[in-house]
Amino acid sequence: CSVSTPIRATLFPGDGIGPEIAESVKQVFKAADIQIEWEEHYVGDQIDPRTQSFLTWESLESVRRNGVGLKGPMATPIGKGHRSLNLTLRKELNLYANVRPCYSLPGYKTRYDNVNLITIRENTEGEYSGLEHQVVRGVVESLKIITRQASLRVAEYAFHYAKTHGRERVSAIHKANIMQKTDGLFLKCCREVAEKYPEITYEEVVIDNCCMMLVKNPALFDVLVMPNLYGDIISDLCAGLIGGLGLTPSCNIGEGGIALAEAVHGSAPDIAGKNLANPTALLLSAVTMLRHLKLQDKADKIQDAILNTIAEGKYRTADLGGSSTTTDFTKAICDHL
Amino acid sequence: CSVSTPIRATLFPGDGIGPEIAESVKQVFKAADIQIEWEEHYVGDQIDPRTQSFLTWESLESVRRNGVGLKGPMATPIGKGHRSLNLTLRKELNLYANVRPCYSLPGYKTRYDNVNLITIRENTEGEYSGLEHQVVRGVVESLKIITRQASLRVAEYAFHYAKTHGRERVSAIHKANIMQKTDGLFLKCCREVAEKYPEITYEEVVIDNCCMMLVKNPALFDVLVMPNLYGDIISDLCAGLIGGLGLTPSCNIGEGGIALAEAVHGSAPDIAGKNLANPTALLLSAVTMLRHLKLQDKADKIQDAILNTIAEGKYRTADLGGSSTTTDFTKAICDHL
Ligand SMILES: CC(C)[C@H](C(=O)O)[C@@H](O)C(=O)O
Ligand SMILES: CC(C)[C@H](C(=O)O)[C@@H](O)C(=O)O
Repeated sequence: CSVSTPIRATLFPGDGIGPEIAESVKQVFKAADIQIEWEEHYVGDQIDPRTQSFLTWESLESVRRNGVGLKGPMATPIGKGHRSLNLTLRKELNLYANVRPCYSLPGYKTRYDNVNLITIRENTEGEYSGLEHQVVRGVVESLKIITRQASLRVAEYAFHYAKTHGRERVSAIHKANIMQKTDGLFLKCCREVAEKYPEITYEEVVIDNCCMMLVKNPALFDVLVMPNLYGDIISDLCAGLIGGLGLTPSCNIGEGGIALAEAVHGSAPDIAGKNLANPTALLLSAVTMLRHLKLQDKADKIQDAILNTIAEGKYRTADLGGSSTTTDFTKAICDHL
Repeated sequence: CSVSTPIRATLFPGDGIGPEIAESVKQVFKAADIQIEWEEHYVGDQIDPRTQSFLTWESLESVRRNGVGLKGPMATPIGKGHRSLNLTLRKELNLYANVRPCYSLPGYKTRYDNVNLITIRENTEGEYSGLEHQVVRGVVESLKIITRQASLRVAEYAFHYAKTHGRERVSAIHKANIMQKTDGLFLKCCREVAEKYPEITYEEVVIDNCCMMLVKNPALFDVLVMPNLYGDIISDLCAGLIGGLGLTPSCNIGEGGIALAEAVHGSAPDIAGKNLANPTALLLSAVTMLRHLKLQDKADKIQDAILNTIAEGKYRTADLGGSSTTTDFTKAICDHL
C-alpha cells in the first residue's frame, strides 16, 4: 500500500456495545497513522431475500470487494424464517478458517501464565451443516458433514500459518475413535498436509483428552486445528484460560484471501451506550486484520500499545477490575502510540 | 443386605494397571469389613459372536444378574470387525446415564479450589450412534441421534440425583442455537422434567460458553446434564480441573437399576505390573457403587479414608508427586479405616 492509496475495509460496528468499540478502533488506527477508509455497513431491519438474513447483499459485496473487514458483535434478531448473521457471513463469504490466537495478557493475572495458543477452526461444515430432521416423532437426527476438500483446505491453512508464524507444532483435535469415518477423514487430510511440512511437529489428540490437557497445562499445545464444533468449544475454553472472550481476537479467512476479523464476545446490551465496554477483543482483531494485510509494523505497534496499557493497569475497564471508560482506555492506548 | 447375604458384584479388573488397582479395591473393602463376593471376568482373547466384541456374553450376564459391577481400564484390542469394549458395555447393558462426580481433593493443590461438580452424560445415543457413511468420494457424514425417550430418561436421572443428593441446580448443556432440532429436543425434555422439580434451579448453557465458564469459575455449576459427546468432553475438562482422570470416579446407570462403576483413565501399559499405579479413581468409583447400593456409611468411611490419606500427603503415588507404591498407598488407606 502506498500512502496515496489508503486501505479500504468494511466495518460492521454491530449491535449493543458494537458502535462504541468500533469507534475505539477508529481512534487507535488514526493515532497509529493508518491510512484506512472504513466502509460501514449495518444489520438491516428487514430480511434481504438475496441473503435470507438481516445482512444485506451490499454489505457482503463490500467485504468481497475490499477483501478485508472488521465485525463487532451482532445479536441475531429473534424470529423465524431467516438465517443467523454469523452463519450467513461464514457461508456467503466462504470463510473457511477461523483463527483465534489466545495469549496471556502481561499484567492481567488469571490462573494460567504464558498461554500462547492458536486455534484454527474449520468454519463451514461439520456439525454446522444445518441438516436436521425428525425421523419419527421423538426421534431427530442431525448430519455432520466432513469433506476432503474443506479438511485439506483448513489443514493447509493451519500448517502454512504455523510455518509463517514461527510455530513448531500442529495438533489435530478429533474424536475419530468414535466417529471413524468423519473425523477419520479429517485426520487423514491433516496427515497428508503434515507430510509436506516436515519441519512442523504433527500430533493427533482426542478432544476429551485435549480439554483435560488444556486445563492442566496449556503449554503442551501450540497450533490446534479441528472440525467446526470442536473449534467452537476449544476456542472458548482457551479464551477462558486468559480471561474470556472480551480479550481474544478472531479472524475468519475466506477463499481468495478474504479476511473478516471479529470480536466473538456478545453485544452486552446491559452496558451498551454507557461508555463502559472493553474494546480489547475488537482492537486485537483489527490487529489480526493488519497482519493479514502484511502491515506487521503497524500491527506490532498497536498490539504493544494495547498490551502495555493493560499491563500498566492504570486504565482498565470494569470487566478487568478497573474503572476506566471506553474512551479513557482508548485514549491511553493512543497515548502509547 | 443382612450380614449373611453378601453383596455379589461383577469385577472387570481390566488391562494394564487394572489388576493392581482392582486388588487395591479388594484390600480396602476387606479392611472396611464389606461382605462382598467379587465375580471376576476378563476380556476374552477371541471375539464372542454374541456380543461382537472381546467381552464375553457371560460377563455381561454377570453384571445383569448382580445388578452392580466395577470395571478397571480396558484397552480395546486393535483390529477390525469387533465393537469397542466400552461401547459394547454401554449398549448391551443399556447404561443410559454416566455420572461423574468431580471434587477437589483436600490437600492436593491444583489451580482450582473447591470444585464440586457432577456431570451426568447421556450414554447411549447422540454422536455415538455409529451411523456413518460416505456419500460420495471425499464426502462423509455421521448421524447424531437424539430421542425423546433417552433425553427424558437422563434428565429424570439428573433431577432425581440432584434432589436426593442435596444439590440445588441442574444446568443442561447444549448447542441448540446451531442444532435446533436435536439439541432442541434434548432441552425440551429437560424443561419438561424440570417442571416436576420446582425446588431445583434449572438453566440452559451453550457448550462453548459452559467450557469458558468452567475454566474461569467452576463454582458457577452444580449438576450438569448433557448429550453424549458433550458429556465426554466436559467430564474430562472437569477432571482436569482437579488433577486428572486418575482421581475422578465414574458410575454408569442402566435400566432396572444396574450400576457399573468404572475408572475412566487409561490402562497405562508403561507402568503396568510395577506397583506404581494410583488406585484412587477405581477406589472412588467403588465408593459410588456402594452409594448406589445405599451403603452410605461404608461409602463415607472409605471415601474419608482415601481423601485423608491423600490430604496427609505422606503416602502418595508418583502421579501425585509422591513415591509410594500402590500397595503402600492402599495400606495407608486401610490403616485409616
Ligand atoms: C453464536 C454462535 C452461532 C457462534 C458459533 O457457534 O460458531 C459463536 O459461538 C462463535 O464461536 O462464533
Ligand atoms: C474410550 C472412549 C470411547 C470413551 C468415550 O468416548 O466415551 C472415553 O473417552 C470415556 O469417556 O469413557
